[in-house]
Amino acid sequence: MLIVKNIGQLATAEGQRARSGDGQGAIRVLKDAYLVADDRGQIVQTGTGRAPELPGAEVLDAEGCLVTPGLVDAHTHLIFGGWRAHELMLKLQGVPYLEILAAGGGILSTVRATRAASEAELAEKGGKALAKMLSLGTTTCECKSGYGLDLETELRQLRAVKRLNGSQPVELVSTFLGAHALPPEYAGNREGYVKLLTDTVIPQVAKEGLAEYCDVFCETGVFDREEAEQILRAGQKYGLRSKIHADEIDAIGGSQLAGELRAVSAEHLIAAPDAGIASMAAGGTVAVLLPATSFYLEKPFARARAMIEAGVPVAVATDFNPGSCPCLNLQLAMSLACYKYRMKPEEVLTAVTLNAAAAIGRADRLGTLEPGKQADLLIWDAPDLEHSFYRFGENQVKTVVKKGAVVGR
Amino acid sequence: MLIVKNIGQLATAEGQRARSGDGQGAIRVLKDAYLVADDRGQIVQTGTGRAPELPGAEVLDAEGCLVTPGLVDAHTHLIFGGWRAHELMLKLQGVPYLEILAAGGGILSTVRATRAASEAELAEKGGKALAKMLSLGTTTCECKSGYGLDLETELRQLRAVKRLNGSQPVELVSTFLGAHALPPEYAGNREGYVKLLTDTVIPQVAKEGLAEYCDVFCETGVFDREEAEQILRAGQKYGLRSKIHADEIDAIGGSQLAGELRAVSAEHLIAAPDAGIASMAAGGTVAVLLPATSFYLEKPFARARAMIEAGVPVAVATDFNPGSCPCLNLQLAMSLACYKYRMKPEEVLTAVTLNAAAAIGRADRLGTLEPGKQADLLIWDAPDLEHSFYRFGENQVKTVVKKGAVVGR
Repeated sequence: MLIVKNIGQLATAEGQRARSGDGQGAIRVLKDAYLVADDRGQIVQTGTGRAPELPGAEVLDAEGCLVTPGLVDAHTHLIFGGWRAHELMLKLQGVPYLEILAAGGGILSTVRATRAASEAELAEKGGKALAKMLSLGTTTCECKSGYGLDLETELRQLRAVKRLNGSQPVELVSTFLGAHALPPEYAGNREGYVKLLTDTVIPQVAKEGLAEYCDVFCETGVFDREEAEQILRAGQKYGLRSKIHADEIDAIGGSQLAGELRAVSAEHLIAAPDAGIASMAAGGTVAVLLPATSFYLEKPFARARAMIEAGVPVAVATDFNPGSCPCLNLQLAMSLACYKYRMKPEEVLTAVTLNAAAAIGRADRLGTLEPGKQADLLIWDAPDLEHSFYRFGENQVKTVVKKGAVVGR
Repeated sequence: MLIVKNIGQLATAEGQRARSGDGQGAIRVLKDAYLVADDRGQIVQTGTGRAPELPGAEVLDAEGCLVTPGLVDAHTHLIFGGWRAHELMLKLQGVPYLEILAAGGGILSTVRATRAASEAELAEKGGKALAKMLSLGTTTCECKSGYGLDLETELRQLRAVKRLNGSQPVELVSTFLGAHALPPEYAGNREGYVKLLTDTVIPQVAKEGLAEYCDVFCETGVFDREEAEQILRAGQKYGLRSKIHADEIDAIGGSQLAGELRAVSAEHLIAAPDAGIASMAAGGTVAVLLPATSFYLEKPFARARAMIEAGVPVAVATDFNPGSCPCLNLQLAMSLACYKYRMKPEEVLTAVTLNAAAAIGRADRLGTLEPGKQADLLIWDAPDLEHSFYRFGENQVKTVVKKGAVVGR
């Protein structure tokens, strides 16, 4: 049993479903509050005033600070071999990405390094990143495969996630992203690779229970709308719910497809057109926006406000990966969402808790501080939500609780 | 005696003077290196290969990681009362700063809160910020007054700095910035306030030895070029060397004046014209650039490249203050300098070590890792300098050494 007392401000979204429109910012705020969790790590009570005294309970003193749900990072590429630090310098010199790719760099260099790494090596490296993420407040994290691009390595990436899930405090959710790029072996044979994914890899991933989601990078020069649909439908056939990298650079129909397939989420969406936003709203698709990637690549920022107004629930995630966003700090993505998307702090809070949980199918259990939900929570070194957004650039999380247990201080 | 062994990459600027032009990025890089400091905390040796074994020495194992000089934050407003979190929300709603000011907000609300705070309260609050800065790698920090705007409170701010200097590990350098704004009591009597500063406050600050520098906010609607010159010359008369907030919004002659007065530094410089840059180059003035302020206020980024090419040494600092930059993380300013100013990692390293030390008159003793300099150094969670800029958004400093002693891990 855990009691968190002297909470200056308890700020939380409410409910078990993603929120949009006015609901995106309609959070519950309690001043001078407390929270009680039971021995299973489930919240049983929140309230204001003096916390109850319960014999044998562990008591955490929030010392008048802000308490929020633990952060949910709904889009990462956590598992990969190598790094690509030297590409930053090329980028700063103005070398185009396609030139880097042609010289054997870019995603293909990560594919080579990932194929060369053992499951244990991949897990160890991912574990180091997770420890940092936890210290920054991330208590749940989605992890995509997609640096293997062959049966064996894709499975190895997903097995590394499985190995990490439960062996450290951050809860992990797996997404199969075999359709992240065309592997060199299939150059000139796109059809053959799509067939490999739909007929061999997806069935095997499903058989071994290695992923809950299937994702596709739907983009000019990667996979087109038709191929994306083929792959996502194959995933659905095998019980993998759909996610899609859509409209990051060009609007080639990814966001429209997301809504039509009732995808759980669509991601990036920098170039999402009104028709795609409408389709996502109709399909109940969560928009997972990645502002740190826009920042790092110096690209435009997605139209978060238009999506919220159109009724699309917006989540915000890091996109942690070795190429386009080597940043695992969800707090920085939150600052960028506030400053660059012009989302209000309340809307951003929903975006990284309830809506992010919904984007990975965990909104029934995670993402809010309400009785019946799991006690994943953060004590901040800030008196209130507003202050936490104002003091940008430093880690403001001072205590991390996962499932009722203190896992970081 | 301290030995740092197994340094994967030792990266440091060289010399005792600020560097510009090609020299800004001409750092020394040793691979597989070590460093030895004596009992006074002074560096006595650096080299490559196996570290010497010296009986009784403390040995730090850098485990193959990057080692750099400690970071020098050459521009902060560390000491102030209150915060202004609510102004972020007004800003995001598009409320102009002058409207906030007219409603009693902005800098004047900080002046009220600072006047109401005791020296002990100011020092305690500053100390909390310094502890965070230290954990982020800042080992030396400049602190400006300027939220008192009267004799008593300006002195109190500077005394709070004096109290903090030596009572915690970060070394502090004081700047008198009485000319930060016109206080409400002198509305309509600019001349009277300038006279108060030149005839009363500056002499008293000098008499008590409370500051090494005198600074002026030279800007449209604040202090014009003529007033700035009057105040800075008064400072020089009393032994306070000159700094100047110049060309942040409008180019009203601040950077030209900086060079003419042989100011040690000019700061902000977003709108600095070519003539001002030339004047600074001729006067040996260091440009202290503040990219986190541009980021937070969504203003243009200063022309760092033009300054470096013109022979002006560029330093980079946080500008930590409760209004225009509530960020104390110099690592974030370094990332922004790299991404937004397009400075190379080597140039940024010089900007936050040697050139920053020169901007506060400490380049003879701090800012590089060379025999004879003080052993202020950082061990990074990164193999090399390039990697430290690539992994943006997280605290990559894992060990902080000040004057030969480990002060943070």
